[in-house]
Amino acid sequence: MALTIPDAETIKQAAERIDPYVHRTPVLRSAFFDKLTGVSLFFKCENFQKAGAFKSRGAMNASLSLENHELKAGVATHSSGNHAQALARAALLLGVKAYIVMPKTAPAAKVAAVKEYQGEITFCEPTLQAREETLKQVTDRTGATEIHPYNNYRVIAGQATTALEMTEQCPPLDYILCPVGGGGLLSGTALSAHYFSPQTKVIGCEPKGADDAFVSFNSKTFYPSISPQTVADGLLTSLGSLTFPIILKHVHDIAIVEESEIIQAMQWVWERMKIIIEPSAAVPLAVAISGKLDLQGKNVGIIFSGGNLDLKKLPWL
Amino acid sequence: MALTIPDAETIKQAAERIDPYVHRTPVLRSAFFDKLTGVSLFFKCENFQKAGAFKSRGAMNASLSLENHELKAGVATHSSGNHAQALARAALLLGVKAYIVMPKTAPAAKVAAVKEYQGEITFCEPTLQAREETLKQVTDRTGATEIHPYNNYRVIAGQATTALEMTEQCPPLDYILCPVGGGGLLSGTALSAHYFSPQTKVIGCEPKGADDAFVSFNSKTFYPSISPQTVADGLLTSLGSLTFPIILKHVHDIAIVEESEIIQAMQWVWERMKIIIEPSAAVPLAVAISGKLDLQGKNVGIIFSGGNLDLKKLPWL
Repeated sequence: MALTIPDAETIKQAAERIDPYVHRTPVLRSAFFDKLTGVSLFFKCENFQKAGAFKSRGAMNASLSLENHELKAGVATHSSGNHAQALARAALLLGVKAYIVMPKTAPAAKVAAVKEYQGEITFCEPTLQAREETLKQVTDRTGATEIHPYNNYRVIAGQATTALEMTEQCPPLDYILCPVGGGGLLSGTALSAHYFSPQTKVIGCEPKGADDAFVSFNSKTFYPSISPQTVADGLLTSLGSLTFPIILKHVHDIAIVEESEIIQAMQWVWERMKIIIEPSAAVPLAVAISGKLDLQGKNVGIIFSGGNLDLKKLPWL
Repeated sequence: MALTIPDAETIKQAAERIDPYVHRTPVLRSAFFDKLTGVSLFFKCENFQKAGAFKSRGAMNASLSLENHELKAGVATHSSGNHAQALARAALLLGVKAYIVMPKTAPAAKVAAVKEYQGEITFCEPTLQAREETLKQVTDRTGATEIHPYNNYRVIAGQATTALEMTEQCPPLDYILCPVGGGGLLSGTALSAHYFSPQTKVIGCEPKGADDAFVSFNSKTFYPSISPQTVADGLLTSLGSLTFPIILKHVHDIAIVEESEIIQAMQWVWERMKIIIEPSAAVPLAVAISGKLDLQGKNVGIIFSGGNLDLKKLPWL
């Protein structure tokens, strides 16, 4: 595994490496939201990304960076979310196996999504300990390489390509607002802004019901995510040992929003932009709408991180 | 009112006239649907159109085509659907009043959408007779010009600009699949194909539960839509005296699909393309998926006609 924080060249190489396998997603505008907020908003639509989320970037970059003999034995992770789908897809494209450890309580839709990409699922008890132990058993048995969803520099370099593209697609941005769960996207975004657009301030955006990054950032001390309660199911995880230091060094601030603000922002995006984003993806826009940051008249990039959710369970129903 | 069927020049003029007021909507592709159908599909995304549907084109063209003294007195229609919103928006942009007659049973969401564009609503009993009589009273009182949702050549010329753009945005198309309700979009599409892409066959696509166009087309005799039952609420209306002859002359065929096929197509679009289309907009894709037409290996344009619906009442819930 790459042992150092990705530098500018590493991120550019990641962008080249994954280019044949991922979308260069569009940046959309919205007259409605510009008027609502008084801000010039630029929406980077990773909801249109392959497998429906930015996670395809990191999973692809990490898989493609393995040595041939490593890659042959396959890749593995414990996840029930977008990273599991993204990793299964990466493995399928590269002709190797993806071993995915999932809690046996995982929703049928998420199991089906991994199976669609021919991921080999091992079910376990729904505890972190069971997931980690089961993953260890799987990697011991198969020799597959674990690709962590965020605590992996190659994954971070892959996620960083999102903001790299934004610097090419948008006018100079004063801010980028980015959701934060484990911090893979946020740390990658902060690195890309630092290298490629140093005047851009990066703000992590987090649900108040899962504010471990907010607390950790402000106290400069790692606090894990304990019993998080939020509709933004992609943002439940704790920061990682690799992501937290990057965030501390390069992120300008972390802002939190209420559940009702997240749901309202998401519903407005569906109604006004006619595009589907998942709850986690609505968090940065909710921050922009909340007025908690002084963004008036600024150019602000918003990362719509993904568009995967159960269409039968919408948060406003 | 323009008294003759729009010719090529008239449609080009309509495109120029409305250009500052409407979006040139994108044409999207989908690897998933291409694979599913064996067809090269080109999706014209009028769900991203201003006010959420192609109706903005016809309403804008008709309003802009009025003489100054006519325009000053405002525009009027009886509608509770996308045309009402589109006409209210057109009037607002042109600084005149839009008088909208709506049944008092209209959903709150549709009333709110018209009010957002400052349309002046007159409520009436929920019968066609009451709607027509109330509209007559309103136009007598105000001097406003009625803009019919589809039985109006300027509206038809406006809707025809959708397919005109497709001929510029897509490779040569073998087919265009287009929903049919009153026939404004379908007749405009057929005219544009005839003038600008004569090798393109235009297929009207209709729910089996509202198959008046199918019956009328095949019998060459006008049959009204009586007690239509379909989730595609934009396709409940009967063909018009102006649209039906154009459809008879220039449309290649009309295809019908079941409700379940419409809902499945719509849900797949939401899941796979991450964009929001309304049920009526899913009908042409449902036809392509059904295999009822021999489209294998062809280039086929699909018009996603709109994206307005109540997000609390999804057809798969």
